Amino acid sequence: SIIRILEERKEPIRDLAGKRVLVTAGPTQETIDPVRFFTNHSSGKMGYALAEAAARRGADVTLVSGPTQLTAPRSVKRVDIASAQDMLDQVLARYEEQDIVIKAAAVADYRPVQTFDSKMKKKDGNLSIELERTTDILQTLGQRKQHQYLVGFAAETDNAIEYGKGKLERKRLDAICVNTVGKADSGFQSDTNEVIYLNKEGKEQHLPTETKKQIAHRILDEILEDMEADRK
Amino acid sequence: SIIRILEERKEPIRDLAGKRVLVTAGPTQETIDPVRFFTNHSSGKMGYALAEAAARRGADVTLVSGPTQLTAPRSVKRVDIASAQDMLDQVLARYEEQDIVIKAAAVADYRPVQTFDSKMKKKDGNLSIELERTTDILQTLGQRKQHQYLVGFAAETDNAIEYGKGKLERKRLDAICVNTVGKADSGFQSDTNEVIYLNKEGKEQHLPTETKKQIAHRILDEILEDMEADRK
Repeated sequence: SIIRILEERKEPIRDLAGKRVLVTAGPTQETIDPVRFFTNHSSGKMGYALAEAAARRGADVTLVSGPTQLTAPRSVKRVDIASAQDMLDQVLARYEEQDIVIKAAAVADYRPVQTFDSKMKKKDGNLSIELERTTDILQTLGQRKQHQYLVGFAAETDNAIEYGKGKLERKRLDAICVNTVGKADSGFQSDTNEVIYLNKEGKEQHLPTETKKQIAHRILDEILEDMEADRK
Repeated sequence: SIIRILEERKEPIRDLAGKRVLVTAGPTQETIDPVRFFTNHSSGKMGYALAEAAARRGADVTLVSGPTQLTAPRSVKRVDIASAQDMLDQVLARYEEQDIVIKAAAVADYRPVQTFDSKMKKKDGNLSIELERTTDILQTLGQRKQHQYLVGFAAETDNAIEYGKGKLERKRLDAICVNTVGKADSGFQSDTNEVIYLNKEGKEQHLPTETKKQIAHRILDEILEDMEADRK
């Protein structure tokens, strides 16, 4: 049929065949007690779109995912985690064998210092919860980087591009995808996204607002182009 | 067909026809900044099961629901909320006209004192978040109770029945459904539940472990029986 022919023409070339790609996606949950936790509004859509796009282009894809309502394609190896520490452990265990690592997850920066085994009883008056920094996964990956092409994301409400450039350098990334939307949360749950791709050579590529699936392919195009250039 | 006949036989009698029932369900989300929030592991399944069961039995049902992945039957009026304060406002606005109010939601007891319009920047070292008590919805409903039959839930990890009796009295409820599971979180996401129904006359009715749909009908049976007894 016509539709089938169009579908076939849309089938991407397998330009990631032979490459191992690890993508992180979704939020993390930081436990306060058996009932309560901290989390964030990440839907996981951008990470899942990247994992699916990379798999369609022939990559061997691992998706390390926080709790989401999304389904990964069967060809993707999905590893489910809850906390930032879980995510760090699962990513590090698979880091060495990867060619490309894309950190699209919204990992908690802070977790409660104390976690309670029983539900906290409420009391009169205010309550102060002491939080400590989680280990910065992207920074850890930057420090331990060997052959991997390492890509981060920056979702900031203010001065997103400037912030993205600083993060790229500070964390020894190869590239960073910056959400330029005015409010960080509009990038989080939506099906579309507006991304600027910055690389360590100073490239600043504006990717037009498209669906997250289309943006995913555009990001992979940029990564492949950069990896080609690195080899020269 | 045989299946159709069995389905028809399973159709419950419309013993809630003419009654207005309001059910609250799901978690609430308490905003820290545009990205981060506090929440809890409530799936909303118990509340949705109660709303559906009451609607099937002929009640005019309103479901005030926190963010869940569930779908309410079309015959149920669904009101979506995010925070504990939203839930309080929406329930109070509809309280007077209700015959039965069942609070199955897991409402946050605490919310951040300060909410940030921009994403909080992370800093070195620990961070302390100051939380304040939210308004106790069930207690407010108990204080303002006129003709309504008011039912709460108690999901506690320790001494659940004793705690439930205290809560029933303290909040001027007509009845309370106590989850007797050892850990509160096993009652939260699961499809089954174990509930003890306590009423203000001292009834202590153990409802055997069944699906949440079946438990919902058992709870409605108890409520109707109590309301009948109250009228005598």
